[in-house]
Amino acid sequence: MNKPIRIGMVGGSLGSAGFMGRVHRMVQRLDGEYTLRAGCFSSRPDRNRETGDALALDPTRVYADYARMARAEAARDDGIQVVSIVTPNHLHVPVARAFVEAGIHVICEKPMATSLADARSLRDLAARHGVAVMLTHNYSGYPAVRRARDLVASGALGELRIVQVDYAQDWLSEPGDEGWRGDPAQAGPAGALGDIGTHAYQLATYVAGCTATELSADLHTFVPGRRLDDYAQAMLRFAGGARGRLSVSQVSPGNNNRLQLALYGTKAGLQFDQESPDSLLFSPLGEPARRLDRGGPGPAGAADQRASRIPAGHPEGYLEAFAQLYRDFAAMLRGDDAAVALLPDATTGCEGMAFVEAMLASHRAEGRWTPLPAVAV
Amino acid sequence: MNKPIRIGMVGGSLGSAGFMGRVHRMVQRLDGEYTLRAGCFSSRPDRNRETGDALALDPTRVYADYARMARAEAARDDGIQVVSIVTPNHLHVPVARAFVEAGIHVICEKPMATSLADARSLRDLAARHGVAVMLTHNYSGYPAVRRARDLVASGALGELRIVQVDYAQDWLSEPGDEGWRGDPAQAGPAGALGDIGTHAYQLATYVAGCTATELSADLHTFVPGRRLDDYAQAMLRFAGGARGRLSVSQVSPGNNNRLQLALYGTKAGLQFDQESPDSLLFSPLGEPARRLDRGGPGPAGAADQRASRIPAGHPEGYLEAFAQLYRDFAAMLRGDDAAVALLPDATTGCEGMAFVEAMLASHRAEGRWTPLPAVAV
Amino acid sequence: MNKPIRIGMVGGSLGSAGFMGRVHRMVQRLDGEYTLRAGCFSSRPDRNRETGDALALDPTRVYADYARMARAEAARDDGIQVVSIVTPNHLHVPVARAFVEAGIHVICEKPMATSLADARSLRDLAARHGVAVMLTHNYSGYPAVRRARDLVASGALGELRIVQVDYAQDWLSEPGDEGWRGDPAQAGPAGALGDIGTHAYQLATYVAGCTATELSADLHTFVPGRRLDDYAQAMLRFAGGARGRLSVSQVSPGNNNRLQLALYGTKAGLQFDQESPDSLLFSPLGEPARRLDRGGPGPAGAADQRASRIPAGHPEGYLEAFAQLYRDFAAMLRGDDAAVALLPDATTGCEGMAFVEAMLASHRAEGRWTPLPAVAV
Amino acid sequence: MNKPIRIGMVGGSLGSAGFMGRVHRMVQRLDGEYTLRAGCFSSRPDRNRETGDALALDPTRVYADYARMARAEAARDDGIQVVSIVTPNHLHVPVARAFVEAGIHVICEKPMATSLADARSLRDLAARHGVAVMLTHNYSGYPAVRRARDLVASGALGELRIVQVDYAQDWLSEPGDEGWRGDPAQAGPAGALGDIGTHAYQLATYVAGCTATELSADLHTFVPGRRLDDYAQAMLRFAGGARGRLSVSQVSPGNNNRLQLALYGTKAGLQFDQESPDSLLFSPLGEPARRLDRGGPGPAGAADQRASRIPAGHPEGYLEAFAQLYRDFAAMLRGDDAAVALLPDATTGCEGMAFVEAMLASHRAEGRWTPLPAVAV
Repeated sequence: MNKPIRIGMVGGSLGSAGFMGRVHRMVQRLDGEYTLRAGCFSSRPDRNRETGDALALDPTRVYADYARMARAEAARDDGIQVVSIVTPNHLHVPVARAFVEAGIHVICEKPMATSLADARSLRDLAARHGVAVMLTHNYSGYPAVRRARDLVASGALGELRIVQVDYAQDWLSEPGDEGWRGDPAQAGPAGALGDIGTHAYQLATYVAGCTATELSADLHTFVPGRRLDDYAQAMLRFAGGARGRLSVSQVSPGNNNRLQLALYGTKAGLQFDQESPDSLLFSPLGEPARRLDRGGPGPAGAADQRASRIPAGHPEGYLEAFAQLYRDFAAMLRGDDAAVALLPDATTGCEGMAFVEAMLASHRAEGRWTPLPAVAV
Repeated sequence: MNKPIRIGMVGGSLGSAGFMGRVHRMVQRLDGEYTLRAGCFSSRPDRNRETGDALALDPTRVYADYARMARAEAARDDGIQVVSIVTPNHLHVPVARAFVEAGIHVICEKPMATSLADARSLRDLAARHGVAVMLTHNYSGYPAVRRARDLVASGALGELRIVQVDYAQDWLSEPGDEGWRGDPAQAGPAGALGDIGTHAYQLATYVAGCTATELSADLHTFVPGRRLDDYAQAMLRFAGGARGRLSVSQVSPGNNNRLQLALYGTKAGLQFDQESPDSLLFSPLGEPARRLDRGGPGPAGAADQRASRIPAGHPEGYLEAFAQLYRDFAAMLRGDDAAVALLPDATTGCEGMAFVEAMLASHRAEGRWTPLPAVAV
Repeated sequence: MNKPIRIGMVGGSLGSAGFMGRVHRMVQRLDGEYTLRAGCFSSRPDRNRETGDALALDPTRVYADYARMARAEAARDDGIQVVSIVTPNHLHVPVARAFVEAGIHVICEKPMATSLADARSLRDLAARHGVAVMLTHNYSGYPAVRRARDLVASGALGELRIVQVDYAQDWLSEPGDEGWRGDPAQAGPAGALGDIGTHAYQLATYVAGCTATELSADLHTFVPGRRLDDYAQAMLRFAGGARGRLSVSQVSPGNNNRLQLALYGTKAGLQFDQESPDSLLFSPLGEPARRLDRGGPGPAGAADQRASRIPAGHPEGYLEAFAQLYRDFAAMLRGDDAAVALLPDATTGCEGMAFVEAMLASHRAEGRWTPLPAVAV
Repeated sequence: MNKPIRIGMVGGSLGSAGFMGRVHRMVQRLDGEYTLRAGCFSSRPDRNRETGDALALDPTRVYADYARMARAEAARDDGIQVVSIVTPNHLHVPVARAFVEAGIHVICEKPMATSLADARSLRDLAARHGVAVMLTHNYSGYPAVRRARDLVASGALGELRIVQVDYAQDWLSEPGDEGWRGDPAQAGPAGALGDIGTHAYQLATYVAGCTATELSADLHTFVPGRRLDDYAQAMLRFAGGARGRLSVSQVSPGNNNRLQLALYGTKAGLQFDQESPDSLLFSPLGEPARRLDRGGPGPAGAADQRASRIPAGHPEGYLEAFAQLYRDFAAMLRGDDAAVALLPDATTGCEGMAFVEAMLASHRAEGRWTPLPAVAV
């Protein structure tokens, strides 16, 4: 084990409705790679203080203002080396900028920004400052997802033809207080699309090894009074010739968090279900389908092993996958070049925003096939 | 049990590559409702005779010509009452016409025609002759599908929002002889779309209780040298406001015959998987998901019971569902009005062709949202 | 197709509570191998006549008395060649004897007898008369079960170590009228044990390729007022050294008809679930588990193919498996020697009664390890 | 969050073959409830030191001798409050004694001892010293298991009739170095029985809410050269009248870590599968089966919520369940009385050894029904 990396958090106070703050703290601890030292948890001073106290932080390092936190921590010998940003979407870029400019590495919740332009500017700023940015597209931390990606990359599927990704939840099936997620000023221009659509797109492209080139989209808001989409779907065309689809919904009763990915090539098919993440179904054409268990035998096991903690049959889950991103980010900061390619970064964040903007544009244009904007400036 | 109905077949010779002829004969026998008496099984005289002999038919009722068969059988006191048409697609309408004009009821394989115009003309002809037409969209014979339909109709799902149907196979993943299915002159203008897309569309609309009003489509042929599509997808909008998608593929390794349907409404969700047809997942919002077993307790059991033969836990399958259509058709001919609404008929056949033509038109128009043509003249 | 075999039935009237009579008639019809010509369906004259009428039988061949039926049919040129016995257990042997003595082949429901002595005497009588006896242990008609058996026989599992079979139902969870099954005078000395325990034991030994040599048993009756066991379990030792267990229950809520079999050898494991009978899980040690689909690729496919009717992904079920026994019996009568080894016969019936008697004896002896009595005289 | 509890470890060095040391450290960290301060990780001085260094411990608190560690830590103001024992089985009791006598609370791997006498003496010693002992029967930390237990306790199953538990692995299917687990001097008198049989028994009794009163057992060693059992099975009778079975195997290819539990009562059934731990199947008699998702709606959700960290659909797994025991132990030490009943303790450890000794005794007595020895002195 290595000396823990000093980390700080912006957002994620204890009293907030969401659970992501707690998730980040659990996964920071799991592998012993991080130690939480500072935070700016809430814009409400009481909540901020209470959270800092509950986490036993030095009160002088619990900041009312993220910009001051960035400067103050950068000035300390024992200042944080990494910041984790768990705020509403509209703050991702301004907060990240402050830490990037202070030379502090950034772990940021997705979507990275509320516009592609902002995403690009953050990416470029980070590049100029030599600061690492990781986006917590946590599903890419699953061993089975890593293995799926390696199977595709190894040619085990042959030439890729079809990529299908679906993400269904039901927690927004009825009207109610959605907090900042329901407010375009904080969430950005996309609802379910921004929240889980970006996850679905990132998962598909992460495993497929290529991005989409154009798409035809349809968005909808089913729940009366809701201001952003709660349903989005698209037909996709990928670089390299594959076709596919993406659909997301937060109004599908019976689906807790059903993220499913299927890829089909000339030689084999591959199926992954986030709610049963400890195995992968691999079906070479003309052979029986194989269940590739996490930690079990079969092709592309190395990727799986890197991201596994315990043997097959001892289920790992969401937190372990999430922690894997943190673990790989730590490895990268310590010089493990192999980790770089495994991690969603600022370019991934730009790709996500390019996807969102193309979806919105295609939808406005009545489903016209719309090219995804270039991510490079 | 009733006196068996005298039936004849056109197509479905024993030596042919496909298995549908055998399927029709098995399901005709299963419930003892039909007795096969005549046939015109193949355009090849030897095969035709051999099939008739093998089925122990009276040689004078094994016809070289379907038109002659229609006339001759109509003229007999003990002539067939129903004909079953299991030919390549392009013959469905001409053969059906001959029997309709002879006053003989028609059971016809899907798609009913190779154009909407032909489908309409057959429907109208049948109406004028007072002849019943059933299309073998066999998946609508599953007890679970019937139950799903009744759940939707009963309002158990609330207002319908989302309809998603996917049909994936892998048997055409590689180039090879596809027989008449690969030949547009015999299969019609659609490949996977016509073969399994019409099934998927019918299943979705049968359960949803409404048809699509417009769609945006993308078709593709992945296998070099193939003349028709082997992949098709669409975004759909339904009468009543539901949205959804349909995707079909015959090049998805690891999928034997994976037809999956999901419906989500304001109150509940519903999921059906043809490869596990003996149950249905029913998820009322805010309650645990329930597995509704065929023959088991729970809502909408009457529809299920009508189509069940044996108790829960004794798996029924494809043949029983297929036989259910035959059984309901027999019941209808015997005066059971309740059977009428359960059966895919000539209007269903027109809807299928309207769907196919809208898919082709939208695809040619680069995915433009395209209204489904009216089925009524 | 062959000329249908003339068959008669004893038991299985339309009005009876059970569904087995209907099952036998459906599966007789499915493959066109049999034609029902005579019957003695009920000891109640009205029911008997009504059933004959409903089945459109010649009224002179609907008999009030099974002994007369045996003699009369044997005397006709067009008399039945096979009788199917679907009566309460205590009548299996007397009815079978009458037909055996008349030279008519016998298909008999399980358990074959209510004592091993009776079973042996029937077996010997049939042997002397050169009459074939098939026991409808229908689960051995599943393609996946045949394939499992061939996998074991081929050595794919290596040396067999463990055999585990469980059969759970819930339909007798509460007190109520069980009909003849609840009456020892008709059902014999075993309740769940005789009804489904014999199925479980036959399935296990059919696939394992060997019988048990000794067992240690525990029986119980949970429901007050019930006269026979509704729960039975045993530890088993098999010829060849394998160990295992068997458990059956008809009081396990949530289980419709859950029959599960697992076998483990030095080289691989195998799992079958009757409620999902269209595939088999095959797990070679140190390799990923494979799903062997009915009609799909992989080892031991020939056994599977023989018992399959339609391609993978088109679910076959209970009726098809049941029909397979009838189909194989027809093949055997027509000279197909390969069918002989596939069919449960009078020796299987003796093995079943040996199992039942050993279970009862061990239970009475407080679970003492008890050898299974020899089946040979 | 609370001030972390100071913990030490005995056993679990980094270089050891097993993974349990790492598991304990991960789960100690996950919820931030513990801070590792001292250890005696290995009897090999180099490994011990290296592990201490890797964990960044104060070198003066990395002890060569566990007895010295107990005394030294007890003497410190900032000494450990809890010790976690992850040694081979034969050391559990001696190590635990040392810490109990030093007044330090004990978390101990299972089985607690290698004899019932030792287990009892440890329990009594702990009682006399007022020291808490928790046994890491980690499967009782799963939310679904807690919920199952509450369902049974609430009467939702009615009167309990049947309890069935099976635990199958395959990692010992072939001869090889099993380390201390293969050595009776270190593992104790039971192999698979001690390792996973005690887990299975604890899980069953934890959920059933009662222990077994007598059992009939069969043990076996399949792999040549192995000195302890690799297969064990039993028929069980429980206090209150339920019957059941237990079977464990480490030679069942295709099973990674398959621990399955089913309970059936007069009113409902319940099924749990450790490899899919995020849901429970609950089947009230005469109603559809319900899938009770972790964090989802349905009866007995409170128990589930206490042990859940993240919402339904975000899979939790083995580590979270394991961590739950640690979290509840911390809560108990801090005065949460509700935690006491949730935790496997020294009495549970005695029950486990009573089970093991009864299994061995029954096996030696040819499967004779053998009462479980009393756990109370």
